[in-house]
Amino acid sequence: MHSTFSDSGIRSESTLAMGDAPAPGEVWLVGAGPGDPGLLTLRAATAIRGADLVLHDHIPARIARAHARPNATLMDVGKRKGAAPVPQTKIIARMLDAARAGKRVVRLKAGDPFLFARGAEEAAALAEAGIPWRVVPGVSAGLAAPAAAGIALTRRGVTGAVTFLAGHDETGELPPHDWAALARAGGTLVVFMAMTRLDALVLALLAGGLPAATPLAVIAQASLPGQLSLTTTLGAATLAAKRSALPGPALIVIGTAVGQALALPDPLLAPAARRAAR
Amino acid sequence: MHSTFSDSGIRSESTLAMGDAPAPGEVWLVGAGPGDPGLLTLRAATAIRGADLVLHDHIPARIARAHARPNATLMDVGKRKGAAPVPQTKIIARMLDAARAGKRVVRLKAGDPFLFARGAEEAAALAEAGIPWRVVPGVSAGLAAPAAAGIALTRRGVTGAVTFLAGHDETGELPPHDWAALARAGGTLVVFMAMTRLDALVLALLAGGLPAATPLAVIAQASLPGQLSLTTTLGAATLAAKRSALPGPALIVIGTAVGQALALPDPLLAPAARRAAR
Repeated sequence: MHSTFSDSGIRSESTLAMGDAPAPGEVWLVGAGPGDPGLLTLRAATAIRGADLVLHDHIPARIARAHARPNATLMDVGKRKGAAPVPQTKIIARMLDAARAGKRVVRLKAGDPFLFARGAEEAAALAEAGIPWRVVPGVSAGLAAPAAAGIALTRRGVTGAVTFLAGHDETGELPPHDWAALARAGGTLVVFMAMTRLDALVLALLAGGLPAATPLAVIAQASLPGQLSLTTTLGAATLAAKRSALPGPALIVIGTAVGQALALPDPLLAPAARRAAR
Repeated sequence: MHSTFSDSGIRSESTLAMGDAPAPGEVWLVGAGPGDPGLLTLRAATAIRGADLVLHDHIPARIARAHARPNATLMDVGKRKGAAPVPQTKIIARMLDAARAGKRVVRLKAGDPFLFARGAEEAAALAEAGIPWRVVPGVSAGLAAPAAAGIALTRRGVTGAVTFLAGHDETGELPPHDWAALARAGGTLVVFMAMTRLDALVLALLAGGLPAATPLAVIAQASLPGQLSLTTTLGAATLAAKRSALPGPALIVIGTAVGQALALPDPLLAPAARRAAR
């Protein structure tokens, strides 16, 4: 039975962390979720609690502090408004050094480690150095931000595909996706880090064939107390975004799904949330 | 300031649950994650604990039992191998009745409520009935399953787009996506509920222009003790899947990202996971 499995290339090992916390010399890439401390997973909380060193992104700083042991070392290595005070090479060097020194290391990343979070680069560096690594998936802002605005990414008989993509690349330019194919493929588009090149994004999708009337939502600071969402159309998005001066970080959702965003029965936050937001 | 916000269509209300648990008469659509109990969010755990009624999918049955109060009513309304013992209309009727009777209701869904989980239909029914509802996003199997197989969905300079889609529709057939456009758009494809129509899926993508050598992974029971993954190519996938007879539910990942799956330094599971798997 086992050899049949090998023949057909089946593997039963997993990179998903399933223990309690990193062992000495291990590095766990942990998703912190979109920012709301309640959207951390149970395993992520336990992993942070068991860590000697937490290298965290900027948004989950509060989450790191809330769960880490008092004697753990916390280091903010996150980006702020496009700037990276700690370069990626330094983050990786720091991880490797700590693991080699026998520390239990958590690399706490906003959202999910393998969706626009450079987790692939970090895991590759760890694998190459022979350091045991694991991943704890997280709630991506790509799911949480649309949900916060009442947008269901899929809907039976209406929208059966969702594409997640980045709105700018390393140099700050719009990435060279096949925008015409993306426009034709239909479904919902969810664009991360989209505000810097919103003008170019809109033009690429209009040129690719998406109608100017296609519904578009901008969701800023999703799941955080400052959360705001703006609903407009592809054609009007550039001007609407400029007028509204939404705070970052923001995510853009484009497609029929946005037009069907579910109206709330009343503009409530739960009472506990109102308290938390103060 | 407030009127400026109204003019530009900005809203600050949110459908994200930010309180502790549903109030009497509220329904929360809660994501349970891919199945591993550690991938539940803190808010989801608190919401289940505060619920009078938990209507849960089949996979998170154990999670519901682990967190619900002893006197809460738990009801398994999930699908099993394509069959739905409790029809969707009945699930919705049950939610509405319980909320109208002043119960605190949690609808616990596998993965994320708004990504291939019919959360849109349930939220729409609640909104129409005037029942306060909220959503707690979860870790989608679309993120967790690739991670479990060492596949990073995005990678700087290599793969900058990911499309999530369903492999079969209500009638069991391959959905009518524009497969040629999806093939051209590039990036990583993540196909949910894909095994039933794997043959049709492969043919559609080959006809759409994807090379037969495109790497493809099947990940079964991701994050659960029975997890298995199979790595093959688009051209060989139908035969390989037939030979391996992987258990359901399974998810398929297609694209360059699969070919770059990060080899584990050794085939370890953490000791605690081995214990849990027994």
